[in-house]
Amino acid sequence: MSSANLNFNHEEYSARIGKTRAAMQARGVDVLIVSDPSNMHWLTGYDGWSFYVHQAVVLGMEGEPVWWGRAMDGLGAKLTAFMQHDNIVGYDDTYVQNPEKHPMETLAALLSERGWAQGNIGVELDNYYYSAAAHASLVGALSTAGFKDMTGLVNWQRGIKSETEISYMRRAAKIVEAMHAKIIEIAEPGMRKNDLVAEIYRTAVRGADGHWGDYPAIVPMAPSGMDATAPHLTWDDKPLKAGESTFFELAGVHRRYHATQSRTLFFGAPPKKYLDSEKAVLEAVEVGLEQAKPGNFAEDIANAFNAKLNQLGFEKDSRCGYAIGLSYPPDWGERTVSFRRGDRTELKPGMTFHFMPALWLDDGGVEITEPILITDTGVECLCATPRKLFVKD
Amino acid sequence: MSSANLNFNHEEYSARIGKTRAAMQARGVDVLIVSDPSNMHWLTGYDGWSFYVHQAVVLGMEGEPVWWGRAMDGLGAKLTAFMQHDNIVGYDDTYVQNPEKHPMETLAALLSERGWAQGNIGVELDNYYYSAAAHASLVGALSTAGFKDMTGLVNWQRGIKSETEISYMRRAAKIVEAMHAKIIEIAEPGMRKNDLVAEIYRTAVRGADGHWGDYPAIVPMAPSGMDATAPHLTWDDKPLKAGESTFFELAGVHRRYHATQSRTLFFGAPPKKYLDSEKAVLEAVEVGLEQAKPGNFAEDIANAFNAKLNQLGFEKDSRCGYAIGLSYPPDWGERTVSFRRGDRTELKPGMTFHFMPALWLDDGGVEITEPILITDTGVECLCATPRKLFVKD
Repeated sequence: MSSANLNFNHEEYSARIGKTRAAMQARGVDVLIVSDPSNMHWLTGYDGWSFYVHQAVVLGMEGEPVWWGRAMDGLGAKLTAFMQHDNIVGYDDTYVQNPEKHPMETLAALLSERGWAQGNIGVELDNYYYSAAAHASLVGALSTAGFKDMTGLVNWQRGIKSETEISYMRRAAKIVEAMHAKIIEIAEPGMRKNDLVAEIYRTAVRGADGHWGDYPAIVPMAPSGMDATAPHLTWDDKPLKAGESTFFELAGVHRRYHATQSRTLFFGAPPKKYLDSEKAVLEAVEVGLEQAKPGNFAEDIANAFNAKLNQLGFEKDSRCGYAIGLSYPPDWGERTVSFRRGDRTELKPGMTFHFMPALWLDDGGVEITEPILITDTGVECLCATPRKLFVKD
Repeated sequence: MSSANLNFNHEEYSARIGKTRAAMQARGVDVLIVSDPSNMHWLTGYDGWSFYVHQAVVLGMEGEPVWWGRAMDGLGAKLTAFMQHDNIVGYDDTYVQNPEKHPMETLAALLSERGWAQGNIGVELDNYYYSAAAHASLVGALSTAGFKDMTGLVNWQRGIKSETEISYMRRAAKIVEAMHAKIIEIAEPGMRKNDLVAEIYRTAVRGADGHWGDYPAIVPMAPSGMDATAPHLTWDDKPLKAGESTFFELAGVHRRYHATQSRTLFFGAPPKKYLDSEKAVLEAVEVGLEQAKPGNFAEDIANAFNAKLNQLGFEKDSRCGYAIGLSYPPDWGERTVSFRRGDRTELKPGMTFHFMPALWLDDGGVEITEPILITDTGVECLCATPRKLFVKD
């Protein structure tokens, strides 16, 4: 162990590595190349905005994991990851964004040196940070090894959160509560959207209850009016308008752990269809939450939610939730469990999700969503933000 | 053309597409699959935080480009991209993060439908948003086509900025000036780092001179003391300390266009080595800037900078600059030109760079950097932020 400033104790990192090795063994993998920054952080503590260059954590069946990346980022690895410094290996800067050669050549050399160039190498084939060119370079350099797709292997180990992880998510939940409270407090017609987002960001980073705010894996999404018929638009400087809805899809974040929550704000008396959709979403959320308990499947929540929604005259053709926790851009989801028909993942105590029953109407959107924790007996909503369509005159 | 709210006029998008097609023809490519969100935006105007799912712009040798992505994001494409709506094609939500099937199967079907499944298909093989699994899925589904690696093809077309692009970068430059001015104004020993970052964010998003601030492709990096020996750490809640340096590597952003600039703040009287390194960096920047003119090569700047730095007793073993402009996370660079030995890219009027002469010392870092524009006769620094080590008592 180094003297790095870690968010978890040694036992927790050991337990994570143990679970991951058991999963590797079950899949017939001798060494795992972890490119997902969230997985790298979860296994080692490594934290830095360096994922725009090729990097990885390499995990064999024994010994410490090895951090591999750009040499200048090795310094950050020594400051944030738990490994001894001879397990932090940097490559020369001339490999950075240079079409003449590929950094993966240096990873192949490292694997050979450490005796990891034989057997089955697991890679995260469908991760943002493991490009097609990276894979081709690595496979080309390691002709003696076999490769297996282990996309999601580490992500799935992250599903059940520890007490410490849950404590970080509770802090994040207080932060996102404060963000929504700030919106309700200060938003008014005529205000430039970016001026409102500036206050949302300020609240997010100041934090809540004395706990600091970290950056979110997705920036605030805050579309109004027709823009709110689409899910992933961000902001500009158009003024907020009377008679229009704006939804705010936000995350509070503490030490990379996210609590995600959306609310919708309407200026003036909402038209009937907004009130109807609010009512439908709230009722459907209630029946969905009733299914959120240990032993049930992820799809049970979606099926109950969708049945009630349809009964009330609305439809949603996309998933209504997904696993959340630790994350780096571009996605705050864990990319494992989805609340949708056919997802037979068993719910277990300690799992955390964004229950995300967004409805997009023909002239706007209604998002009233909850970060939730599966408990020993049922479910807990991590936030106390009032669950309703916010209306301001 | 649709009624989308665009940042550039029709002629500018046409010119971009024309340049890209000429480059495709020169490389023997019949159709190009563009996965880089910055390239997607540059070619079509599409803007949304949806790059955490598979999506692309497909550009053939005639007709409009085609936006392809998750069905729910097609709505955002209709609102932000210039194409007619039959050239915006969405896939079913069940393809999202579902190991049973891959969204690329639907892209392959689209290519077949449009007559693009023959000939040579160009792909951005080393882009974050074109994973190894995506490539395998596409190649597997299109056995009649050839594939060519066109990583960077569109990026290289983006190097010389138009007048409108430069006007956006000038606005972004005013924003990053305001961010650094805010830091100098309010930072003091004892202040929690996150409270300072909260004000930096607020200033960034409020914007400057009446122009709104967009989100940066990299969050503020603001390490202090020993943490500042590493380049890419972000922030926490540790208080700022007397006798310590903090560097602030920031971007002002307007309509996705970045002006990146770093400054370093020292509380109290800086030790001699900080003053020496300040002097060395400033002198080396001056001789580097003298080489920043049309007709010279990118490496000329690096060679002049490094020679002066070495003469003054310092060394930097990483590149000292790179192309900037339009960007999405995780990188605000264009991933084309680097200021380093061997980069023989000819400098041309309208090119924009982050001249990034950061020095990392054994107990901290010194970053005093400039966003620059190559003019008809030389170079212009886009920001008026005083170029020095900031010292506060």
